[in-house]
Amino acid sequence: MAQRTRKTIFISLLFFFFFFIFMLSGTMAQDFCVGDLSGAQTPAGFPCKKVAQVTVSDFVFSGLAKAGNTSNIIKAAVTPAFVNQFPAVNGLGISAARLDIAPGGVVPLHTHPAASEFLVVTQGTIAAGFITSSNDVYYTTLRKGDAMVFPQGLLHYQINAGGVTAVAIVSFSSPSPGLQITPIALFGNDLPSALVEAVTFLDDAEVKRLKKVLGGSG
Amino acid sequence: MAQRTRKTIFISLLFFFFFFIFMLSGTMAQDFCVGDLSGAQTPAGFPCKKVAQVTVSDFVFSGLAKAGNTSNIIKAAVTPAFVNQFPAVNGLGISAARLDIAPGGVVPLHTHPAASEFLVVTQGTIAAGFITSSNDVYYTTLRKGDAMVFPQGLLHYQINAGGVTAVAIVSFSSPSPGLQITPIALFGNDLPSALVEAVTFLDDAEVKRLKKVLGGSG
Amino acid sequence: MAQRTRKTIFISLLFFFFFFIFMLSGTMAQDFCVGDLSGAQTPAGFPCKKVAQVTVSDFVFSGLAKAGNTSNIIKAAVTPAFVNQFPAVNGLGISAARLDIAPGGVVPLHTHPAASEFLVVTQGTIAAGFITSSNDVYYTTLRKGDAMVFPQGLLHYQINAGGVTAVAIVSFSSPSPGLQITPIALFGNDLPSALVEAVTFLDDAEVKRLKKVLGGSG
Amino acid sequence: MAQRTRKTIFISLLFFFFFFIFMLSGTMAQDFCVGDLSGAQTPAGFPCKKVAQVTVSDFVFSGLAKAGNTSNIIKAAVTPAFVNQFPAVNGLGISAARLDIAPGGVVPLHTHPAASEFLVVTQGTIAAGFITSSNDVYYTTLRKGDAMVFPQGLLHYQINAGGVTAVAIVSFSSPSPGLQITPIALFGNDLPSALVEAVTFLDDAEVKRLKKVLGGSG
Amino acid sequence: MAQRTRKTIFISLLFFFFFFIFMLSGTMAQDFCVGDLSGAQTPAGFPCKKVAQVTVSDFVFSGLAKAGNTSNIIKAAVTPAFVNQFPAVNGLGISAARLDIAPGGVVPLHTHPAASEFLVVTQGTIAAGFITSSNDVYYTTLRKGDAMVFPQGLLHYQINAGGVTAVAIVSFSSPSPGLQITPIALFGNDLPSALVEAVTFLDDAEVKRLKKVLGGSG
Amino acid sequence: MAQRTRKTIFISLLFFFFFFIFMLSGTMAQDFCVGDLSGAQTPAGFPCKKVAQVTVSDFVFSGLAKAGNTSNIIKAAVTPAFVNQFPAVNGLGISAARLDIAPGGVVPLHTHPAASEFLVVTQGTIAAGFITSSNDVYYTTLRKGDAMVFPQGLLHYQINAGGVTAVAIVSFSSPSPGLQITPIALFGNDLPSALVEAVTFLDDAEVKRLKKVLGGSG
Repeated sequence: MAQRTRKTIFISLLFFFFFFIFMLSGTMAQDFCVGDLSGAQTPAGFPCKKVAQVTVSDFVFSGLAKAGNTSNIIKAAVTPAFVNQFPAVNGLGISAARLDIAPGGVVPLHTHPAASEFLVVTQGTIAAGFITSSNDVYYTTLRKGDAMVFPQGLLHYQINAGGVTAVAIVSFSSPSPGLQITPIALFGNDLPSALVEAVTFLDDAEVKRLKKVLGGSG
Repeated sequence: MAQRTRKTIFISLLFFFFFFIFMLSGTMAQDFCVGDLSGAQTPAGFPCKKVAQVTVSDFVFSGLAKAGNTSNIIKAAVTPAFVNQFPAVNGLGISAARLDIAPGGVVPLHTHPAASEFLVVTQGTIAAGFITSSNDVYYTTLRKGDAMVFPQGLLHYQINAGGVTAVAIVSFSSPSPGLQITPIALFGNDLPSALVEAVTFLDDAEVKRLKKVLGGSG
Repeated sequence: MAQRTRKTIFISLLFFFFFFIFMLSGTMAQDFCVGDLSGAQTPAGFPCKKVAQVTVSDFVFSGLAKAGNTSNIIKAAVTPAFVNQFPAVNGLGISAARLDIAPGGVVPLHTHPAASEFLVVTQGTIAAGFITSSNDVYYTTLRKGDAMVFPQGLLHYQINAGGVTAVAIVSFSSPSPGLQITPIALFGNDLPSALVEAVTFLDDAEVKRLKKVLGGSG
Repeated sequence: MAQRTRKTIFISLLFFFFFFIFMLSGTMAQDFCVGDLSGAQTPAGFPCKKVAQVTVSDFVFSGLAKAGNTSNIIKAAVTPAFVNQFPAVNGLGISAARLDIAPGGVVPLHTHPAASEFLVVTQGTIAAGFITSSNDVYYTTLRKGDAMVFPQGLLHYQINAGGVTAVAIVSFSSPSPGLQITPIALFGNDLPSALVEAVTFLDDAEVKRLKKVLGGSG
Repeated sequence: MAQRTRKTIFISLLFFFFFFIFMLSGTMAQDFCVGDLSGAQTPAGFPCKKVAQVTVSDFVFSGLAKAGNTSNIIKAAVTPAFVNQFPAVNGLGISAARLDIAPGGVVPLHTHPAASEFLVVTQGTIAAGFITSSNDVYYTTLRKGDAMVFPQGLLHYQINAGGVTAVAIVSFSSPSPGLQITPIALFGNDLPSALVEAVTFLDDAEVKRLKKVLGGSG
Repeated sequence: MAQRTRKTIFISLLFFFFFFIFMLSGTMAQDFCVGDLSGAQTPAGFPCKKVAQVTVSDFVFSGLAKAGNTSNIIKAAVTPAFVNQFPAVNGLGISAARLDIAPGGVVPLHTHPAASEFLVVTQGTIAAGFITSSNDVYYTTLRKGDAMVFPQGLLHYQINAGGVTAVAIVSFSSPSPGLQITPIALFGNDLPSALVEAVTFLDDAEVKRLKKVLGGSG
């Protein structure tokens, strides 16, 4: 390249950088919106953290690396990477979680009110199923590597169907899928027993037994 | 107006009508999309009935005028005006239903996987409530004219809390809200009893009793 | 159940509750978003009221119970339960209103720029209609219990077509449907008469007459 | 590069191409969806033309190059490039149109039920305005190069405010914005005069005069 | 009109105005949401400027009137009217920009991560094209008045294909389309050269040459 | 329970089942929409397979169980479970893929025009990064169990940063995320070399070299 051309390019670059720096900073707006959890949430998610304060560590989440503690009544653990744990997913229409289910363990019947779920088994064997509005039931047994999808808002469950702890990566079509565990919703709060019985057809003794087991009162 | 002006207008109108007829028919596309239920559904709803075949009667639904039959086990009836009953709501983000609850009647615990619900009591008294992902419970008693909103996908119920049949108009934020009645989903299909017990903590006797009552097998 | 098993369960519960309380509070995010009207609105609605401050009364609205005052020029009243009156609908994609139309009354030609409308007649008789982009007109007379749907953004009207006050529950596919009443928009503000005439083809006398009736100037 | 390396690369390429051809054709799904206007429309738009039949000419539209014919009663022309004229915008959330307004011409009061509008004046001077749900009026005069935005569903108009034909490029936030011209909707169809009068407060003589001018009957 | 009727109307108007002023201000919520750029952005855009502070000048943008400065290395300029420059488009699903391309100029390969683009040539001749996920290429030459659409997120470019400066109005299906210029993204930042080479197959000399030209380091 | 009560319940059940079977089949509409790949795609996805033909196997995908073949030029493989491979995700706003990257392997710079990506490393070590519209670069090294999110439409890459094959599960916020690999888009098709050079600033020799390596012509 000749001396002259280099100089022309150099001069052009002065224009060029002003141009691009102005333009790009001007257009920067919505590439991402790492959630500022201290701000007030809106129906579309949290307000955005200032871009100048965002670093690569905002986009990385290590919480799924470690097995959840399955020493509990269901012998299972759900470790979420939803917007509240991993604010980078704010506004991006996606989130995930890790599922650990010890032998004999179960993730009880539950729904995600705001998301569909995509499950991939990474270890062990899982029996899983869901029930539709039409009361059809779809259930099967998944081995390592198998994937299954659970449509939004429908009741579903996962059970360890093998002799070793099963692990799955589940992802969701929302940064805030929600999680409503049916037996906890029924028996783990202070909804009066008579009311629970009326809306479920369950008998009084069973409702009271489970309220005790699951920490409910009333 | 002078004779001449009138004539000019008359001539202009020839252009005018060609212009507008062409333009308006050209732009006509998405004002509405009355569902053609014989076509294959898509994630966004049914294909549209041809506009030439649409009449005002497509936009009118009389099915909510008559009380639903409450001579059943729950002493309640839900009369839907969803897209399958009222194809005009296809693609419009809204639908509705009529609720009739006889004295002692109950609409059991249920969710709408795909819609929020807005309820207006038009007769009688209704005890209603919903449970959140955080396991909080919001319940109250609604009198004639009271409205209550149930956020998308959350468990909720309605019970007649008075001495006369209660009636409500409920509307939904989707033409296809879905309807998953928890006790029917648990006990009204062929999901094996052992599975139901594992994912709900209910005991075997109770599951088998309710499978009998609600028509399930297995 | 043996003593030992009970104890095991008791101990498990310690784990269990830590597990669930942590998990559920962690995932709680977007089940609902009761609007905080004192916060700055966003394109998706108002910021959310803190969950700790939300009670069941937030989800209940009694404003539709009472008939609107129809002692006005149109002998009709629209009582809204939009997000500004009923903040619980914020972000839920739905809202509603009550329509009272005295004999001889009319809800003038209007649009909802941001929502489709689902109307259910709960008393009396209503003549209603809408006009499409293609300039087709769909109109009919609705009796008690009849429902009609008005697609988003299209001009429509409701008229009492009987001898008694007509009442309707209307619901909308947005918490903020908007309401633009055509004659008010044309004649009830300070848009200069000459401008109104130019964009509507109406003559000067008529525009000035209606500006006086409807409170406009200019 | 050594002979050996070249050979390795050559062999790798055999794998490589199988890999990529398989993968890319497998993932191809929704980059674009040129509308097949002969198929049945859905709420989300037309079905997609087969990709194998799509050529670059599908993505090009020349209809905006020529001035619209303004020899009509409004001395204005709207030349649309909506999905019905330019099927490539199907599913892309955008469309456009060309506006030609001769001196003295006007685009009468109208709404786009399904889109916001972004107008750029490319020739002449345009007086434009819109009216909100709150009955506020925003109007001004735009010169060549000026842009103005009209929020979705609100009444607005454009008038030639200079001595030469004004031209504008308008774009819309939907492939099917719709177009409802208020005076045509009021007076250009067979909605009975008495009904028009009742819902607009206009007097009988004026309604009948305009029905004649704009081609309505009844 | 008789004296008596006038008086009745006058009295009615007292009711009328209370009624409408209350109702309309109550329903006013989401007709528009002019962005308050000083507020914290959310995934749905900026918070809304208070309506009382909004004037017609908020809805007008004059920045597209003037040719962009093309005295730079690409002999081209993009003048955006995105939400950051023109806050009135906030929440409206649309924005626009002006393209000036001097003879020999080029808008390099780029994507808009969040929007489809609709281009209308208003002066000169532009060679334009885009590449799909399936690696198909669609390119052509556009003359004055021609329009072309570029589907969301796909690589595309525009080149002056004539002897005079070309100008285009481009509009986008988002208030924040984003703009990622491929060569700037590759060579205009501090991404290490070895990394760039690994992910692009480009050789070291070329990467280093272009990092110098485009201002990158590393 | 007395004999009489049982009989009453039995009779009630006759009503009950008619009621629920009618109601539930009537409301069944949009719980899921397994794609019928033989039908014509729409902007919202494929038409739905008839529910009667759907079985649990439709919701299960085993294609992610097996390692992809990394014996290719990039020593990496992407195994998609997008709607074209796994039709059950149609309309559910989610999909996934498996990434296998052998030592020394790389997933070259690419974008997903229609989705954000959530990556979880299940084996090995991956260096990953993305570049924004503002030309900021975010890159890091991820170990087993680490998750990273890549916002929609932005350039990103993944490289094996360890001595063993790395594996990741990636999920997407769309059933059809698309996949545009930058070097393939630049050099793997018949876009003329001169054009590629003009829009990338790359020199002729390099473009021609890579066209050979990546299978492009022209």
